[in-house]
Amino acid sequence: MTPFTDQKADQIATLGENGLIEKITRWMEPISPPPPFGIGDDCAVMDSGDVGTLLVTVDALIWNEHFDDTFTPQEAGAKLIKRNLSDIAAMGGAPAGAVIALTLSDDVSVSWLEGFYAGIRETAQKWGFLIVGGDVTRGGASNFFGSHLTLMGSAARAIRRNGGQQAGDYILVTGDLGGSRHGKEKTFSPRITEGQWLAEQSVVKAMIDVTDGLAKDLPALLPKGTCARLNIDRLPISQDACKKSESSGKTPLTHALGDGEDYELLIILDQNTDPELLLEEWTRFHKSSLTLIGRIAESDESTERRLIDHATDQIITDEAFQHFR
Amino acid sequence: MTPFTDQKADQIATLGENGLIEKITRWMEPISPPPPFGIGDDCAVMDSGDVGTLLVTVDALIWNEHFDDTFTPQEAGAKLIKRNLSDIAAMGGAPAGAVIALTLSDDVSVSWLEGFYAGIRETAQKWGFLIVGGDVTRGGASNFFGSHLTLMGSAARAIRRNGGQQAGDYILVTGDLGGSRHGKEKTFSPRITEGQWLAEQSVVKAMIDVTDGLAKDLPALLPKGTCARLNIDRLPISQDACKKSESSGKTPLTHALGDGEDYELLIILDQNTDPELLLEEWTRFHKSSLTLIGRIAESDESTERRLIDHATDQIITDEAFQHFR
Repeated sequence: MTPFTDQKADQIATLGENGLIEKITRWMEPISPPPPFGIGDDCAVMDSGDVGTLLVTVDALIWNEHFDDTFTPQEAGAKLIKRNLSDIAAMGGAPAGAVIALTLSDDVSVSWLEGFYAGIRETAQKWGFLIVGGDVTRGGASNFFGSHLTLMGSAARAIRRNGGQQAGDYILVTGDLGGSRHGKEKTFSPRITEGQWLAEQSVVKAMIDVTDGLAKDLPALLPKGTCARLNIDRLPISQDACKKSESSGKTPLTHALGDGEDYELLIILDQNTDPELLLEEWTRFHKSSLTLIGRIAESDESTERRLIDHATDQIITDEAFQHFR
Repeated sequence: MTPFTDQKADQIATLGENGLIEKITRWMEPISPPPPFGIGDDCAVMDSGDVGTLLVTVDALIWNEHFDDTFTPQEAGAKLIKRNLSDIAAMGGAPAGAVIALTLSDDVSVSWLEGFYAGIRETAQKWGFLIVGGDVTRGGASNFFGSHLTLMGSAARAIRRNGGQQAGDYILVTGDLGGSRHGKEKTFSPRITEGQWLAEQSVVKAMIDVTDGLAKDLPALLPKGTCARLNIDRLPISQDACKKSESSGKTPLTHALGDGEDYELLIILDQNTDPELLLEEWTRFHKSSLTLIGRIAESDESTERRLIDHATDQIITDEAFQHFR
């Protein structure tokens, strides 16, 4: 018996990624606690007694999936680390240590790999944590390179995706959005410092990092029976999104909503606070921007967990979502 | 620039696994602490303050590398877990939680994967720990299945490979050795209970699990300037090794030394103790066997870190190592 099948109906490709994760979540249910202690949040939280909260996250960097030949090996190594750091940042944590596992076909280049580890080394040093172990194994007939990083961290207060947010709460985002394929997917800086600072603010209820694009990631922060009412003209659209728009024929907004790989933090702020106070305080500590982009609002069935243009009352339309079609 | 090369001299296959790990260890040196806090022991040890010692290990299970079509999916899932549990056992730890990462080509079978997770579930339940997160990603054009488990655990006293052992100390092993390809590589039970019990005995100085075979794993416990003097006739050779010998034309000893995948514990006991006392105490708590197989002894250059037949004073010869040629 092999792990593979010719029968289309039984192939994971037919099921799709979400279907697969749903299945796995179900299969794992008896041994996987609810989030944040199990599958379903940016990091797995493990109770470690008196040392605050231990965070654990694992992310992959696979050839032709997460990087291609436009990357230098250093950029590839750095990206493996930074993808994971972004998950730790989204919980308000600090990185503590990591293990790396490589899966390599026989024809992987040693000198390329050296560059890859240089990228890892520099990035881990920059963010002040250690690689505490790892594993290397052969895999794939040829032209296969896979890497996995399991990153552990700690947080005094771990900010979950679900922090009891409700209609009325504010929606904020760090940095700007869109145009990742113009270089940001290589040069981004994970929002570790910002995430920790935000976790110290008791008015911050929930947080997530934007990896698939605002249109896909924001709904994960919306409770049942709510939608997100956005001030479209306040949305921090990146210059790269505008540049990309010139050649793509799509609007800059479409790029900002759907490009993904922003690695910015999306934040829910308690409605019983003045967001201007937080924004003012923010500028005293951070160079990056923080923008109030909208609020959670009650929804009917047709608008549940959708993004609504506050100015026009319209669901932000398919035009903006064409990326996902 | 791609991770792959046509130039043989630059391929990892030319470098070999040990050469590669040496290189990686060097590349990582500034950010990887010495064992057990970094690369080089069965588990990575992370200081977690007041909760004893946090253990972390990562191991892979890749199609056609670590399992083949003689495995049921349940056996494959169980093996991924048990490989990692064996590393935790070798530190004297208890498992606490794990994250799983899958790398899958499009043609992986959903029903096969369900069986795989059933094996994971049953094994994790049996050993009482949780899967706290994971990642699934696409990889490989076709017929690719890769899985990685990062397992975290804790230990009141983590037993390292290097525990200050020296000439005169005793060498013991659990269970029996050899013949893994007759089923033990599927049915083995990681020595978690035994490992924890051994860690409670202050006379136990060092420990490792036998994965590559005694001939390859025992030298990792021998300090510089020492060798292992073994009582060959006391070596616990498995019935499967004897069976295998009938068809292979090799001696049962060769199989016991070199087959690997024994997942037994190899233990160094302080010489200032009576090993019979430990063996007697052992039988009160464990069904599996524990055998005194020899002692560490001083060596000259020609015998350093070699296995010596105590009865004949001969280095255990190439005949026993032919497996590695």
